[in-house]
Amino acid sequence: MARSRLTPERESELYATVIDLLGEVGYDGLTMDAIAARTRSSKATLYRQWGSKPELVAQSLRHHKPVRIAEIDTGTLRGDFHEMIRRSDDCRMEKDSAMMRGLAHAVSENPELLQAMRALLIEPEMTGLDLLLRRAVARGEVDAGNPALGLVPHMMIGALVARPLIEDLPVDQAYLTTYVDAVVLPALGAP
Amino acid sequence: MARSRLTPERESELYATVIDLLGEVGYDGLTMDAIAARTRSSKATLYRQWGSKPELVAQSLRHHKPVRIAEIDTGTLRGDFHEMIRRSDDCRMEKDSAMMRGLAHAVSENPELLQAMRALLIEPEMTGLDLLLRRAVARGEVDAGNPALGLVPHMMIGALVARPLIEDLPVDQAYLTTYVDAVVLPALGAP
Repeated sequence: MARSRLTPERESELYATVIDLLGEVGYDGLTMDAIAARTRSSKATLYRQWGSKPELVAQSLRHHKPVRIAEIDTGTLRGDFHEMIRRSDDCRMEKDSAMMRGLAHAVSENPELLQAMRALLIEPEMTGLDLLLRRAVARGEVDAGNPALGLVPHMMIGALVARPLIEDLPVDQAYLTTYVDAVVLPALGAP
Repeated sequence: MARSRLTPERESELYATVIDLLGEVGYDGLTMDAIAARTRSSKATLYRQWGSKPELVAQSLRHHKPVRIAEIDTGTLRGDFHEMIRRSDDCRMEKDSAMMRGLAHAVSENPELLQAMRALLIEPEMTGLDLLLRRAVARGEVDAGNPALGLVPHMMIGALVARPLIEDLPVDQAYLTTYVDAVVLPALGAP
């Protein structure tokens, strides 16, 4: 018997909806019912195709591809960071910030979800950042022994998470550019 | 008719339990039932004394006094930061980090809770940090126009939130000291 599978377009739409809902209601508040209602699909389809909420969330994260950092190569570290920010539109950054806050607690309770988030979201970003930083070291812009080299993801997560908490303002390109210029590059001793 | 009020000791215990539970189950998962059960008090007492969950959480945050940063004055910015970290024991920092992750999403949905968290937790820390930074500027350790001066809380929140997400390790004194020396002081151009 043929099983009704979603088309790739419908699947993309569904993943995007999961990311939106994650930002709106958080992981605990995210229900299969709400996903089914907003995407106008049946819960049976969701369970048949993804098995469970953690798996569906993990797949949505995987689909929610971050900006491909590794492709960026402007010739300077400052240029690379600015290009990375330029490629992320403001709306997308706000969603990422909301999604990260939505997941912040859930991942500490769900080892599988933390694993998925780390494998799908954090590690590719870190690999991309790492490549970008290694090129800066090779060009002599950053000292190979600089202890801030391993802390760039921490600084960037701080930028994303802290802005709405402290200033009640969304993360946008202007703010992130200021943050990179004022914090990340000076910590790295980069021009 | 005399109403049974909690003793200050019982009240402190209760606030500490709320902070613990917040780190364990997150804001959405925190129920008045669970608080009543763990503190062996009646739900009626909780509602009579605090009215609602957001108010009880806000009061618990208020009671959960951060290290009094403003009192610290070692004569150098590096010394002040190190002293600040020395006064926060590892267990406390892990709890703060868990609590922050537990609240991260909830505050974006509850303007009152965000208000409370900002007034009780973020603003005193920022005032304390600000004092410490202004003294460093007065001593000539940091340039008054350094754009990183306004971003120190963002860097510190990044340090607290990112460590468990990225490395699956708790925040501790050694890590925070490394972070301050490698990121915060260089961004400020401080010795």
